[in-house]
Amino acid sequence: MSVLVVGSVALDSVETPFGKAEDVLGGSATFFAASASHLTKVSVVGVVGSDFPLEQLEPLKKRGVDFSGLEQAEGNSFRWRGRYRHDLNSAETLETQLGVFSHFSPKIPDKLRSRPFVFLANIDPRLQLDVVRQVAKPKLVACDTMNFWIQSRRPDIIELLNHVDLMTLNDGEARQLTEKSNLVQAAQWIMARGPRHVIIKKGEHGAFMFSSNSIFFAPAFPLENVFDPTGAGDAFAGGFIGYLAATGDLSEANMRRAVICGSAMGSFAVERFSIDRLMTVTRPEIDQRMTEMRRLVTFEEDVPA
Amino acid sequence: MSVLVVGSVALDSVETPFGKAEDVLGGSATFFAASASHLTKVSVVGVVGSDFPLEQLEPLKKRGVDFSGLEQAEGNSFRWRGRYRHDLNSAETLETQLGVFSHFSPKIPDKLRSRPFVFLANIDPRLQLDVVRQVAKPKLVACDTMNFWIQSRRPDIIELLNHVDLMTLNDGEARQLTEKSNLVQAAQWIMARGPRHVIIKKGEHGAFMFSSNSIFFAPAFPLENVFDPTGAGDAFAGGFIGYLAATGDLSEANMRRAVICGSAMGSFAVERFSIDRLMTVTRPEIDQRMTEMRRLVTFEEDVPA
Repeated sequence: MSVLVVGSVALDSVETPFGKAEDVLGGSATFFAASASHLTKVSVVGVVGSDFPLEQLEPLKKRGVDFSGLEQAEGNSFRWRGRYRHDLNSAETLETQLGVFSHFSPKIPDKLRSRPFVFLANIDPRLQLDVVRQVAKPKLVACDTMNFWIQSRRPDIIELLNHVDLMTLNDGEARQLTEKSNLVQAAQWIMARGPRHVIIKKGEHGAFMFSSNSIFFAPAFPLENVFDPTGAGDAFAGGFIGYLAATGDLSEANMRRAVICGSAMGSFAVERFSIDRLMTVTRPEIDQRMTEMRRLVTFEEDVPA
Repeated sequence: MSVLVVGSVALDSVETPFGKAEDVLGGSATFFAASASHLTKVSVVGVVGSDFPLEQLEPLKKRGVDFSGLEQAEGNSFRWRGRYRHDLNSAETLETQLGVFSHFSPKIPDKLRSRPFVFLANIDPRLQLDVVRQVAKPKLVACDTMNFWIQSRRPDIIELLNHVDLMTLNDGEARQLTEKSNLVQAAQWIMARGPRHVIIKKGEHGAFMFSSNSIFFAPAFPLENVFDPTGAGDAFAGGFIGYLAATGDLSEANMRRAVICGSAMGSFAVERFSIDRLMTVTRPEIDQRMTEMRRLVTFEEDVPA
C-alpha cells in the first residue's frame, strides 16, 4: 500500500564536528520519503520557493517518490541552519527562514486523498487537522509534532489527537505536551486522548512504542560514527510507516518489526549529511541491520534445571 | 558460587519530589549486597563509624549477607545527602562527609580471599588495586568507578583496568575516562586496556554490555513511578554479578541473562527509598520482571513469503 506524507521540503545548512554542508536537501517530508521509498510508494505534499533547486529531487523521483503534490510558490524556500556540538545529542538552531512555508496551506490532490497510510510530519497542527479533513478514511493516520507547536498551539494538538491513530514525538516533547515527567504516564495521557499507539523517540537512546496493553522498546543501533543526526526522527517515521504500508499488517507483531525498521532507517540517516546515506543504502543492508538489532537485544530465558 | 564486594556502607539523606528520607542505609556495597543476596551468598568488606546503627544491617544478615569483613572504626560514618529534581535523572549532591571512609584501607580477611567473584564498588582506584593484590585468582573481577576518581586518579584507573575482567560505569563517566564521545569507541578504548567486557549504564535509558565481538543492550524497565534513583547502578551490579556467581557460567548467553537480571534489580531498587524494595522483592517477582523485559524487546523476524 502507498503512503502520503505532508511536511516540509527544505534546504538545510548544517555544521557538525565532522564537517559542514550548505543548502543541502532537508525537511521532514524529504527525510521521510527518502526512508519510506525503500519500502513502498510515497507521495509528498509540501511547498518550495521559486529558488528551490528542483533537480536535487531527481534522485528521489528515480526511487519512485511522487512529487505531484509539491507546490512551487513565489518566494524563498524554507531554510534551516543548525549546529551540533561534540556530543551530537541536540541541535542548536542558528537560523530558521520559513519563506513560502509560512503561508503553506496543504491542498491534497484528488488522486492522493485515498492513500491508505498518511503521515502528518511536523507542521502547524491546524494544517495537520486540515489535511485530516481532506483525506478519505485511511487505514492509518500518524502525526508528529515539535516543541514550538506544543508551546503555541497545544489546544490544536489535543484536538488533532482525536483524529489520528498514532503519534510520534520525542521524549522532551512528550513531557512538554502532557506535563508528565514519567514517559509511561505521558504515553497513557496521549492515548487517553485518541491515538491507539504512541511512539516516544529518544534519539540515541532508542524508542518506545506504547499500545493499550503492551510496551515495546527498540534501541538505537550503536554506531561507531554518527556523522549528522539531522532527520533521524523523520527517517525513523519513514521506515516505520513504510514498513506498515508495504506489509499492510497492523498486528502488534508487525508493528514491532516496523519500529525496528524505523530504527534501522534512522541509524542509516545519521551516517552522512542530508539524505545521502538514505539514497545509497540497499534493501539487503536494511534487512541486515534489522537482524543485527535483533541480536543486540536477544537473550534466552534460562532453561530451568 | 559466592561474591565478595568491597565498597561503602553509608547513611544517606535523600529528597525526591515524592518524599524525604534521613540517615537511611546507603552506600555502594549495601545496595550491591541487598541486590545480589537474592541470587547468591555475598560478603561485604567496608568500614563504618562508631556512630553507625549496626542494627540496620540485621535484615541483610537475615538474607545471608556476611558482614564479617565490615570494620567499625572510631569516628563518623560516611554520609551522603542528595536531592533529585522533577526529572529524577541526576542527583544533586548537597553534602558528602567521608568520615572514617577517608582513611579506609580494605583488609580482606583470609577466608574471603578466595571468593570466586569480586566486585570492586566505587572507591579510590588505589584501594581497588590494593584489593586486587589481596585476592586469589577469582573467576571474575569487576570494578565500578565515578567522575571524582576519573578526574583525580585517572592513571590509577588505567592501571586497574589491567587487573579486572569487567568494568561497569555510566555513560558520562565512560566519555570522561576515554575522552571519546561515542560509546562504542569508548568501550573499545577501555577493552583495549584490559577488561574483556565493559558495561555502560545509561540510567533510565538502559545499559550496553560490550564484549570483544558482540554488543548487547538491555533497556531499563519502564516504570510508571520512579521513587528514588539512588543505588540503582549498584543494585544493577549486584543483580548482574549475583546472577553470574549463582550460575557460575560466563558464556555470552548467560552474561546477557545476567545483564537483564541486573536491569530488573535496578528497576526494583528505584521503587522505594534506600534498600527497602530490595528487601521485600521475591524471587518470583524478579523472574517475572525478567520475563517482562524479554517481552519488552522481543520481535520476530518476518517470515519471507
